[in-house]
Amino acid sequence: MSGKFIVIEGLEGAGKSSAIQLVRECIEGAGHPLICTREPGGTPMAEAIRDCVKHDWQERVTVEAELLLMYAARVQLLENVIKPALAQGTWVLGDRHDLSSRAYQGGGRQIDHQMIESLRTISLKGFEPDLTLYLDVEPQVGLERARGRGELDRIEQSGLAFFERTRARYLQLASREPDIQIIDAMQPIEQVHASIRMAMARYLS
Amino acid sequence: MSGKFIVIEGLEGAGKSSAIQLVRECIEGAGHPLICTREPGGTPMAEAIRDCVKHDWQERVTVEAELLLMYAARVQLLENVIKPALAQGTWVLGDRHDLSSRAYQGGGRQIDHQMIESLRTISLKGFEPDLTLYLDVEPQVGLERARGRGELDRIEQSGLAFFERTRARYLQLASREPDIQIIDAMQPIEQVHASIRMAMARYLS
Ligand SMILES: Nc1ncnc2c1ncn2[C@@H]1O[C@H](COP(=O)(O)OP(=O)(O)OP(=O)(O)O)[C@@H](O)[C@H]1O
Ligand SMILES: Nc1ncnc2c1ncn2[C@@H]1O[C@H](COP(=O)(O)OP(=O)(O)OP(=O)(O)O)[C@@H](O)[C@H]1O
Ligand SMILES: [Mg+2]
Ligand SMILES: [Mg+2]
Repeated sequence: MSGKFIVIEGLEGAGKSSAIQLVRECIEGAGHPLICTREPGGTPMAEAIRDCVKHDWQERVTVEAELLLMYAARVQLLENVIKPALAQGTWVLGDRHDLSSRAYQGGGRQIDHQMIESLRTISLKGFEPDLTLYLDVEPQVGLERARGRGELDRIEQSGLAFFERTRARYLQLASREPDIQIIDAMQPIEQVHASIRMAMARYLS
Repeated sequence: MSGKFIVIEGLEGAGKSSAIQLVRECIEGAGHPLICTREPGGTPMAEAIRDCVKHDWQERVTVEAELLLMYAARVQLLENVIKPALAQGTWVLGDRHDLSSRAYQGGGRQIDHQMIESLRTISLKGFEPDLTLYLDVEPQVGLERARGRGELDRIEQSGLAFFERTRARYLQLASREPDIQIIDAMQPIEQVHASIRMAMARYLS
């Protein structure tokens, strides 16, 4: 029996990291072996690509290069970690996956839809998560929380309008695709966790 | 008046590096300001991506990731170095460019044609060199010359059949596209250089 691929998505500071702890408990509690991944990254080569994307270069980083690097890292993780795990029955819990590219690059950076669809075809060949929990926050709320953690990286410095467009694209895609569930992450953390627990209980039953 | 983009292509050990010295003399001799580039690489970020591609990872490097990284590096070089130089009238002499991807990834790695065409559209948006000199050698001859230089990197270790396919694709593309000229680089180096000098004299006149 093959494993399931569950993904946690949302803007910076939405609460993905703590949600992952919780979802992990739910999945392991149901008796499934589990590994966790994060994107971009998760293999030695993909982590090197992540460093490339996050670095504050003294040159203009084109939107196309950023997008190509994201997908290069994703293919490495997908083929070398995610698919082999699922094939042997291990569940995979992802801190971000493809939906992040569609929201950040497609919505935030306003990259042409057809360009992203081409890259998805080339890289993923139709592969999709079984369930995505999208933690929805207003950008200002998320960035405020993230700022509490330290300095913002290159992408986090992109400005509020960028994150507003990213959030809008997340919501649009989530409303259209049945395997993406929206969690209101502006509630107090106990209520957010109750919603996540409920979504997972429903999925696991 | 805008500059011209001249590219030198060929398998490892074909003699690109010494051809570049010669072509450089021809262009500068005709009074044009000139910069030289190499691919993948040529900007700080693109050089970091080059290191990623060339590194001997302890994981399978997928053909898709390799291809995506090549184009990510190419976009950075094109937008930050090549186009700005051409716009201000500086000529650009490239040690490899897009034809390498079409030959190595398309021919050598046998990646689907449509995949590469999509990436070319996304990354280059129709941009093309003004002149390409393709130095044609049998793979065994080139690898023998390159081996004289030291250890072979990850891509250079791909095996003879890979390079045979790459060479065949180079020849096929060169025969179809009028801006690509074939130089027989299996001749003694003086004759190779005479052919290059002639091709450049024709182009510059
Ligand atoms: N619902 C919430 N209410 C208040 N604070 C929260 C809530 N959820 C998370 N936080 C706090 O906000 C901060 C950022 O959360 P977290 O690091 O989990 O976000 P993240 O989505 O993982 O961010 P990143 O995308 O940067 O990894 C943490 O200090 C976390 O405890
Ligand atoms: N026509 C030739 N006959 C004999 N030797 C040659 C010829 N052309 C080049 N060489 C020698 O072969 C070696 C490899 O050439 P060179 O480094 O210019 O190849 P290259 O195409 O730049 O390779 P790479 O793709 O690895 O950069 C050098 O020692 C060079 O002097
Ligand atoms: Mg996190
Ligand atoms: Mg060389």
